[in-house]
Amino acid sequence: MFDCGEGTQLQLRRLHLSFSRINCIFISHLHGDHCFGLPGLVATMGLLGRTTTLHIYGPQGVDSLLRPLGESGEGETLPFNVTVHAVDTKREALIFEDRSVEIWSIPLHHRTPCCGYVLREKPLLPHIRRDMTDFYGIPVHALRGIKEGGGWTLPDGRHIPHEQLTSPAESPRSFAYCSDTMYIPEPPASLSGVDLLYHEATFAEADAARAAATGHSTARQAALVAAAAGAKRLLIGHFSARYDDEKTLTEEARAIFPETIAANEGLCIDVGNRR
Amino acid sequence: MFDCGEGTQLQLRRLHLSFSRINCIFISHLHGDHCFGLPGLVATMGLLGRTTTLHIYGPQGVDSLLRPLGESGEGETLPFNVTVHAVDTKREALIFEDRSVEIWSIPLHHRTPCCGYVLREKPLLPHIRRDMTDFYGIPVHALRGIKEGGGWTLPDGRHIPHEQLTSPAESPRSFAYCSDTMYIPEPPASLSGVDLLYHEATFAEADAARAAATGHSTARQAALVAAAAGAKRLLIGHFSARYDDEKTLTEEARAIFPETIAANEGLCIDVGNRR
Repeated sequence: MFDCGEGTQLQLRRLHLSFSRINCIFISHLHGDHCFGLPGLVATMGLLGRTTTLHIYGPQGVDSLLRPLGESGEGETLPFNVTVHAVDTKREALIFEDRSVEIWSIPLHHRTPCCGYVLREKPLLPHIRRDMTDFYGIPVHALRGIKEGGGWTLPDGRHIPHEQLTSPAESPRSFAYCSDTMYIPEPPASLSGVDLLYHEATFAEADAARAAATGHSTARQAALVAAAAGAKRLLIGHFSARYDDEKTLTEEARAIFPETIAANEGLCIDVGNRR
Repeated sequence: MFDCGEGTQLQLRRLHLSFSRINCIFISHLHGDHCFGLPGLVATMGLLGRTTTLHIYGPQGVDSLLRPLGESGEGETLPFNVTVHAVDTKREALIFEDRSVEIWSIPLHHRTPCCGYVLREKPLLPHIRRDMTDFYGIPVHALRGIKEGGGWTLPDGRHIPHEQLTSPAESPRSFAYCSDTMYIPEPPASLSGVDLLYHEATFAEADAARAAATGHSTARQAALVAAAAGAKRLLIGHFSARYDDEKTLTEEARAIFPETIAANEGLCIDVGNRR
């Protein structure tokens, strides 16, 4: 999960999302609208009987958000461990990796230490074509080798190439989360070609001075970042309450980067890649 | 405001309640569902340009809830002061008083230091009967004295008694807030005759053992407290999620104390006195 503003646990319930499937939370910065839901979520995970460790990543000081849990003894009675990882917000670095994904931190520029995150799926192995392996009578123990790139030689010496025995895997998907930040004219390398870029667009270009003064971006700037990074799609959000609806902002971004969507509450979006 | 769980600021917005009319927040105890909305509310009050001091009352340690504001510098840039008052949760004591109300703390028994609060309006002065004062030609400068209990002597020596020149004021209203607590068989004196008693009723009597073990009350126990205190009406809440609806709990309480209402989200209730 990226960021955890106040009321996140209420939204999770409303959207019927499972608390137990959240294993890592990545906090961009310590302003309340991005992290004040953390202690409540952690306390509720405890009430739900969680036992697996929760990992929290974020700028130096992110652990202080959990201190209120200690005041009432709630922290001591948590049935699971919380491991806090301080992220250097000034570096583009690989901060998390497991079997299926990598997560990178990227420096953002805001009024307080702040970083974005890029999630990249690792390449998947191709699918075995059962019809072909059955046809050639290839034994099960050989399938792993074929999945990993091999072909197969028949008893009569004929060689069946890998490509004939497999169909390509889905291409790995990628998602980037950039909130909050001033305009970054030169996007970091790890943003390059991302399938879906979430980028804040607090203001319209008419309020560009206010955006710069408060450490935020305009919708146009978000679109420029998407274009410069070669993103496939752009999701904008974090709209200032001064705009009655997000239309102005979406249209402004689309003028530069047509594949722009507004991130409204409860939006579910398929981060599918587009071949 | 009594207690401030996560999402309180969202509920205030939803119910169109003004943030600026909140001057004092009384926290019962430091479990998250009663106080984790505090830092977000305070930060938002700052964004809304509040300038008047906010007073927060609560058990020792309540100030720690505001520490996360400091981590990002949000606390330093607040345009108003927050004054925190530690309440001794073991004493029944007058902790707040202004022109119109008194607020008392009362000891509760929970897993962590916890107190309830009783709010009592001060007696109001009677209303001047304009028809009578006009009829007798009583000058404006004399009205204050009449409001405060005096009568009026006419130039011809006739004395018009106070009661004839005024109509009685509304009786002062009172409200008590008791959450979270085990059953308290002998309610403190300041609960006596309260117009509306909010009392937690986490469990049904069938789960009385669990209530005692977790420092909570059953609906029946809440009703017993209301009866023993001579409350006019009882509002129960803080229902455990194990009950599909609050009917069982309300009916259980009504068997002992018929004037029981269930405190559902968004309920507005007139704490009118019943003469």
